[in-house]
Amino acid sequence: MPRPARIQDVAAAAGVSVSTVSNVLNRPERVNAGTVEKVLAIVAELDYVPHPGAAGLRAAHARSIGLVLPDIANSFYARIARGASDAAFRQGYALSLCHSGDDPEREAEYFSMLVAQRASGVVVAPLGADPGRLERLRRRGVPLVLADRTRPTAEGCSVSVDDVAGGALAVAHLLEGGARSVLVVNGPREIRQCADRHQGARQAARRVRGAVLEQVVTPRMTVECGYEAGLAIETAPDAVFCTNDFLAVGVLRALTERGLAVPGDVRLVGYGDLDAAGVAALTTVRQPVEDLGAAAIELLLDEVEAGPDHIHEARVFAPSLVVRASAP
Amino acid sequence: MPRPARIQDVAAAAGVSVSTVSNVLNRPERVNAGTVEKVLAIVAELDYVPHPGAAGLRAAHARSIGLVLPDIANSFYARIARGASDAAFRQGYALSLCHSGDDPEREAEYFSMLVAQRASGVVVAPLGADPGRLERLRRRGVPLVLADRTRPTAEGCSVSVDDVAGGALAVAHLLEGGARSVLVVNGPREIRQCADRHQGARQAARRVRGAVLEQVVTPRMTVECGYEAGLAIETAPDAVFCTNDFLAVGVLRALTERGLAVPGDVRLVGYGDLDAAGVAALTTVRQPVEDLGAAAIELLLDEVEAGPDHIHEARVFAPSLVVRASAP
Repeated sequence: MPRPARIQDVAAAAGVSVSTVSNVLNRPERVNAGTVEKVLAIVAELDYVPHPGAAGLRAAHARSIGLVLPDIANSFYARIARGASDAAFRQGYALSLCHSGDDPEREAEYFSMLVAQRASGVVVAPLGADPGRLERLRRRGVPLVLADRTRPTAEGCSVSVDDVAGGALAVAHLLEGGARSVLVVNGPREIRQCADRHQGARQAARRVRGAVLEQVVTPRMTVECGYEAGLAIETAPDAVFCTNDFLAVGVLRALTERGLAVPGDVRLVGYGDLDAAGVAALTTVRQPVEDLGAAAIELLLDEVEAGPDHIHEARVFAPSLVVRASAP
Repeated sequence: MPRPARIQDVAAAAGVSVSTVSNVLNRPERVNAGTVEKVLAIVAELDYVPHPGAAGLRAAHARSIGLVLPDIANSFYARIARGASDAAFRQGYALSLCHSGDDPEREAEYFSMLVAQRASGVVVAPLGADPGRLERLRRRGVPLVLADRTRPTAEGCSVSVDDVAGGALAVAHLLEGGARSVLVVNGPREIRQCADRHQGARQAARRVRGAVLEQVVTPRMTVECGYEAGLAIETAPDAVFCTNDFLAVGVLRALTERGLAVPGDVRLVGYGDLDAAGVAALTTVRQPVEDLGAAAIELLLDEVEAGPDHIHEARVFAPSLVVRASAP
């Protein structure tokens, strides 16, 4: 097995000194362009990887961003990771994946690990609402961007999707299609997204004369709970808006079993545009989650690199409607 | 804003010297147990994070593993990441997420970044089959575990799921339920998983007298292609085995439109146990993907930490059947 190339090998092959190679790699502005080009060609040819020594170490070490998520296997967070990964890669940063598994202690341990590893900054989709944990990280001077959550810009940057607008979009579409009675099948309103989406639904209903909005709340936002809610409907409304796609799939199943046609008898809109929505041909609200992940990285790196010139932003993305068979 | 605690603060609060604090953190075996306990309590109380200086640097720096995946937003890879993340966390390693976006050049750049950052090792679910890229990484002396792929143990460790067994499991279930004619709706057989699952299906069919297995191949493994395949079936078989869940959802839709009841007229089994399978109430083959991700990390760390005592393994996981309404 050939040994990896050393800086001496590069210098010998290029016919320059070791310190010239080092300058080409670290301070190329000090070296004439022809030499830079020649040395970089040899570096590529020999597949030489600089050792992160005293000088290069800080830079190599620092070019890493922590991404703290409650569950990487949840498609919402996986899409944040995809957007964040694309953006970090474009900027030459590594992304340290911290999957907290919905465990606040583990999340806190990740924060300590990131600080110990001198991460440049952290993007966190925070679990629960314990501001102490985030405050602790901020006190350590680590730039921090909140994802899927807003916060006062005095405290730092955040990126989120406008859930009020999403709820309004869904119900406005149903009302424009002629529905007058709309049932909202919602999760617990302690979940910020549920409260926001319902608020948007109310706003849209108030804009249309004769529109009647009712709500049922399910304990969890699953297919099963949607199914139960669908079976429990006494008088079928013109339309149902479910605040996530799993609830909508369950409602669809219940209505179909009861002999009610979707969209013929009842029009149905979900939320999230998960795989399930495509599978069940649901009209739904799509969130630009990859954009949110990418924006989080961009805001973070602006804070890291611009220092005092950086201005905190609360960036809010607009959702869009994906129209499928359940509510054309 | 209070400044972060320094090692001097810890020493003063614990009433010991700075070098004792350093020993507690780096070489605790040299310090008596009472002092270790006292110092660690102060470290926790002051929220002190050691600076990775000359001595600690290598260790802090090295405790990172690269995870190279074609697409983090694909639920199969997201579940690998979840399992890998859990295992890395247990061992105190950071996980550097490298989402290659199905781009071989980007994958190669990630390899260079991981080498430059002196990652302890790499777990890679390799895109395509260019052995040159992997060989290049291996030549640099970076321990490497392949995920979702087998390789000769002479070359290194790998973790995978037994797709032949999965195909056999699916078709054996259909045959045990009384089906005799089974149609396999498969993706292109250049995809190793498709070839393996079909091979397993053939093995199961050969074990049952009178069983007839046919195959149709779709260009892509999507709901749409499954739907087309379902419409194109001339004589309905007793059962259909689709080599992924998206194909099965499409076949289900086509059969239902044609007035064929599932499972009454045609029994249907998918593969993968994606969210879509739960939504469509599909019987399907579940792969222990999280276990695979965790095993990849364990094998890698054994190689990193045990050095010459490490023995390469090709660990193969068995899939299982999840029975739902489409084929009880």
